[in-house]
Amino acid sequence: MKIRSVLSAAALAVATTFAASQAYAQDTFTLRLAETWGPNFPIFGDASKNMAEMAEKMSDGRLRIRIDSANKHKAPFGVFDMVKAGQYDMGHSASYYWKGKVPNTLFFTSMPFGMNAMEQYAWFYHGDGMELMQEVYEPHNLMSFPGGNTGVQMGGWFRKEINSLEDLQGLKMRIPGFAGEVFAEVGVSPTNIAPGELYTALERNTIDAVEWVGPALDLRLGFQQIANYYYTGWHEPATELQFLVNKKTWEKLPEDLQEILRVSMRMASYEMLVQSQHENAKAWASIKEEYPDVQIKKFPKDVFDAMYEANQKLLKEAAAGDELAAKIVKSQAEYLEKSRAYSDISERAYLNTMAEVE
Amino acid sequence: MKIRSVLSAAALAVATTFAASQAYAQDTFTLRLAETWGPNFPIFGDASKNMAEMAEKMSDGRLRIRIDSANKHKAPFGVFDMVKAGQYDMGHSASYYWKGKVPNTLFFTSMPFGMNAMEQYAWFYHGDGMELMQEVYEPHNLMSFPGGNTGVQMGGWFRKEINSLEDLQGLKMRIPGFAGEVFAEVGVSPTNIAPGELYTALERNTIDAVEWVGPALDLRLGFQQIANYYYTGWHEPATELQFLVNKKTWEKLPEDLQEILRVSMRMASYEMLVQSQHENAKAWASIKEEYPDVQIKKFPKDVFDAMYEANQKLLKEAAAGDELAAKIVKSQAEYLEKSRAYSDISERAYLNTMAEVE
Repeated sequence: MKIRSVLSAAALAVATTFAASQAYAQDTFTLRLAETWGPNFPIFGDASKNMAEMAEKMSDGRLRIRIDSANKHKAPFGVFDMVKAGQYDMGHSASYYWKGKVPNTLFFTSMPFGMNAMEQYAWFYHGDGMELMQEVYEPHNLMSFPGGNTGVQMGGWFRKEINSLEDLQGLKMRIPGFAGEVFAEVGVSPTNIAPGELYTALERNTIDAVEWVGPALDLRLGFQQIANYYYTGWHEPATELQFLVNKKTWEKLPEDLQEILRVSMRMASYEMLVQSQHENAKAWASIKEEYPDVQIKKFPKDVFDAMYEANQKLLKEAAAGDELAAKIVKSQAEYLEKSRAYSDISERAYLNTMAEVE
Repeated sequence: MKIRSVLSAAALAVATTFAASQAYAQDTFTLRLAETWGPNFPIFGDASKNMAEMAEKMSDGRLRIRIDSANKHKAPFGVFDMVKAGQYDMGHSASYYWKGKVPNTLFFTSMPFGMNAMEQYAWFYHGDGMELMQEVYEPHNLMSFPGGNTGVQMGGWFRKEINSLEDLQGLKMRIPGFAGEVFAEVGVSPTNIAPGELYTALERNTIDAVEWVGPALDLRLGFQQIANYYYTGWHEPATELQFLVNKKTWEKLPEDLQEILRVSMRMASYEMLVQSQHENAKAWASIKEEYPDVQIKKFPKDVFDAMYEANQKLLKEAAAGDELAAKIVKSQAEYLEKSRAYSDISERAYLNTMAEVE
C-alpha cells in the first residue's frame, strides 16, 4: 500500500485548522490487488475492474486499486498467501481454492445441492455467513468478502448420454473440488486438467466429460463443437468469488474509504450475478442457434439420489472432528431448509407456471 | 437542497491552490427525499434508509439524505409531482403508481407473466431498460433508478379454493393495477381498498380474496388468520421500487457524489431483494408453524392460460397508438424470451432437481 498525501506542506499548516478527519480524508491510497484470472478474463475479471472503478470514482481518486492479473504475478493460486503476507493488499479469487491450506475455506463459494445465489446472499448478510467466514479467515490476518456470483453452474458437457448410475462407472471427467469427490463416490474418475488442454482432452477421449462454468464461459472453450449433451447443474448452484483484504491495509483506511471499499466490493459481487444472467442468456441463444445438436439433459433421478447421499456423507465427514466445520455445515443446512421452503413457493412455482402456460 | 461550504474563508484562500475539484469536493449537500411509505415501513423503508446511510458514510457526511415518510408530507401518491416540481430532491416509490399521469411509467415495476428479478435487472443494466425508462421520465425533469425488489409476489389469499375459471366469476378481490385489469378480463371484480381496511373487508366477506406482497408483509396484516388458500404468484414476478431524482439536483452534485448516489441507490435496490428473501423465508416458516391450515395453491392451468391470453391482449392494446409503449413492450418480450430460456436450464432446472431428490 502506498500512501501519498495530496496536501503540500504549506497547505497542511492551514489544513490542521480543519477537523482532523477532514485533513486525513485528503490522503490518497493505492491498493494493489492480485487476481487469480488472466488479463481481461470475461465476467470474473470485469467484477474486479468494476469494483476498482467505483471505488476510484466515489473517492474522487483518493482510493485507487491497481489490479495485477495472473500473467503479471505468476501465482494464480498464491493469492491467499500473497495477501496474507502483505505482498498484495487485496485479492480476487475464490474461497474454495484454499481448502488444501485451510479446509474450512471450502464452504464459502458454493456447495453441491446447496443454496442458490439469493439464498446464499441472504445467509451471508442476514444469517451467520459473514461472521462464520470471518472466523475462518481471521487467524490469517485476512478479511474475506463475496466477490461475484456466477449463478447456477451447468453440470457439464458429456459426449455420451447418462441414462443410469451404470453409465457413470469409470467415466473420466474434469471436475475439481468437493463436487469431484461426490462424483468419485458414485463411480466417476474425476481428473483435473489445465483449462488450455481441456478441449483437446475431450476431443481425443482422454476425458469423457468436462464441467466448466456456464454457457458464456463454456462457449469460448468450444465444447459445444464436440459434445452434444449439456447437463443441468447440481454441484455449484451459486459459485461466489471472493475479495480478500489484508487486515492491516483495511485498518489503515479512514472510515469513509472503508465504506467505499465495502460497498464497491459488495456491489461488484451483485453486479457479476446480473452480468452472468445476461451473458449466459446471450451465449445460450447462440449455442442453440449454431449447434442445434446440443441437447439439454438432466441426470436421471437415481443418479441425483446417489449423488445427494454421497454429498451428505462427505459433509458429515467434513464436520466430524472440526467444531467450526460442524457449525458452518449446520448453519448452511438450516438456512437452506428454511430459505428453500420459500423459494419453492415463489421463484420455483413462478418459473414452472410460466413454463406450462400456453 | 442545501449547500454548505465547510471551508472557512481563510482556508479557502489556501484551498484554491489545490485543484479546483478538491475545493468543490468539500461542499456539503443535504437532499430531501419523500417516500410513499409510512414511517418505519419494513423492507421498503429499510431500502431508502440503507441508501441514505451508505451515501452519508461514503461521502464522510458531505452527502446527506433526509427522508420524509408519508405521515410527514401527507402525499404518498404525490411523490412524482413533488420531485418533479423540486419540492423534494428525491423520491422513493414505485413507477407503476404514476400510470394515470404518464401511462408508460407502468412498465418499470413488474409485469404479469414478465421477467423475474435477475432477468429484469439484466434488462435494466445490460439490455435497454435504463435507457427506455429514462426516455419516459426525461420530459418530467426526473431521473428514475431501480429502488428495491420484492422478488416474486404471492398470488394472494383466498377464502375459497379456485378449481376452475368458473370459480373466478364475480369474485371480489383486492388487486390493483394492470394485474387487476387482467383478472377483470377473466371475470374477477377487482376492487381497491385501503390497506388498513383489508383485514376487516376479507373477514366480513366484503371481498373474497386479497393480494398484497409476500409472507413477510402479509403476515403483519393477519390474512393467514382468516383465509386458508395462499396462491403462488404470476402478476408481479419482480416488483421493483423506484428512486426518483430531480434532474437539477443531480446536475448540481459533483461527479464523486453523483457516483456515490448512483451506487448507493443501486446497491440498496439489490439489498432489498436479498432482505426480502430472508424476511419472507422467516415469515413463511412462522406461518407454516402457527397456521397449519394454510395451504399453498397454484391456479389451475385453464385459469393461467386464460390470464396469459388476457395479458397478451392488454399489452397489445397498451402498445397500440403509442410508439414508445410499443418499443418498451417489444424490448421486454424479446429480452424475457432469451433470458428465460437460460433461467429454465439453470435456476429452474436446479430448483426442480432439488425438489425431487431424496
